[in-house]
Amino acid sequence: MGKVFVNVGLSLDGYMAPEGMTMADPGHMNWGAKWGAMMGWALKQQVLRDLLKLGPGGETGPVNDLLRSTTERIGANIMGKRMFDQGEVAWPEEAPFHTPVYVLTHERREPWVRPGGTTFHFINDGPERALALAREAAGGKDVRIAGGADVIQQYLNLGAVDELEIALAPVLFGGGRRLFENLREPAPQFRIERVLDGADATHLRYGRR
Amino acid sequence: MGKVFVNVGLSLDGYMAPEGMTMADPGHMNWGAKWGAMMGWALKQQVLRDLLKLGPGGETGPVNDLLRSTTERIGANIMGKRMFDQGEVAWPEEAPFHTPVYVLTHERREPWVRPGGTTFHFINDGPERALALAREAAGGKDVRIAGGADVIQQYLNLGAVDELEIALAPVLFGGGRRLFENLREPAPQFRIERVLDGADATHLRYGRR
Repeated sequence: MGKVFVNVGLSLDGYMAPEGMTMADPGHMNWGAKWGAMMGWALKQQVLRDLLKLGPGGETGPVNDLLRSTTERIGANIMGKRMFDQGEVAWPEEAPFHTPVYVLTHERREPWVRPGGTTFHFINDGPERALALAREAAGGKDVRIAGGADVIQQYLNLGAVDELEIALAPVLFGGGRRLFENLREPAPQFRIERVLDGADATHLRYGRR
Repeated sequence: MGKVFVNVGLSLDGYMAPEGMTMADPGHMNWGAKWGAMMGWALKQQVLRDLLKLGPGGETGPVNDLLRSTTERIGANIMGKRMFDQGEVAWPEEAPFHTPVYVLTHERREPWVRPGGTTFHFINDGPERALALAREAAGGKDVRIAGGADVIQQYLNLGAVDELEIALAPVLFGGGRRLFENLREPAPQFRIERVLDGADATHLRYGRR
């Protein structure tokens, strides 16, 4: 059976997203600039430029290799409704997942098939059911809990997360959506598995103890 | 003029201290075990064992070298009253600073001279005054903002912090005193200066942009 992992960008003060993040207005509370400062390293990589249809070129060093290997290990994604809603207006038509994606939501909706292998399934009966479906769909590959923060917290509290991959960027948001919050005691514990020292972010991988 | 820097241990979820930390009872809310999981790497190093009079021996590798160079650059320390109160009962008679220490407090008290070169000065007129005194005492050496979190936040908000040194440990506290909170906008921004990959903590150094 594959692993369940988280792979996110994080501000140094622990936020996955700055306050006021709304796709309609990148100037609102300066969120676009803040998010860009956190994730700029990713948008420069060849793998992500290709996935997001940002045009040719991009860096091809160890950070890009890391992104590629992460992308290749994913057999299914799980995400929350807010993340889906933001992506629905921001992703290219060929959504950048190329796997089944299980969206946790109260909304009932038929699967939404995108070109390139991404199909969004809308799951109304909770995170455990979504994980069971994602594991089945992933076959031997891994399941990525894509976000947002509240969804990641739900899976941490279920004890279901085998690995945390965090790209820690040296920016302070001062507010927003914290990755680590609302954790139940005893919280799961991790050990350091790998540190890749990028220029604009430190790529940390932790494995469940 | 020397630099002003922060050097702290941090849990992966961003806490400098777990909930319930009180010297009188290490079993309270399991804080002793949590803190030990975060700082265990430090207590194994030769430099810190020597400073804290924990006995001979200890590791002498790159993490120890890092601790030694940090120790040697400090010309003066600044700390809050709570940290002082905790230390007053926990430090050995030869307090582990060997520099002047400026304690931010409302309490009026004569300087407290300890053997080995540590003198605690109790400052009643705010963080800027404490910093001016610390800089003067430090000569060309650096001033360390030792903690707690609220004191570090005050100096971040004054724009006075040149460097952040964080030893990020793969433990989740689930609650406690967050390092990064109450930051004023725009928050100071940093760049990655150095990453030292220890087995039990990742030693991150950030310089002010």
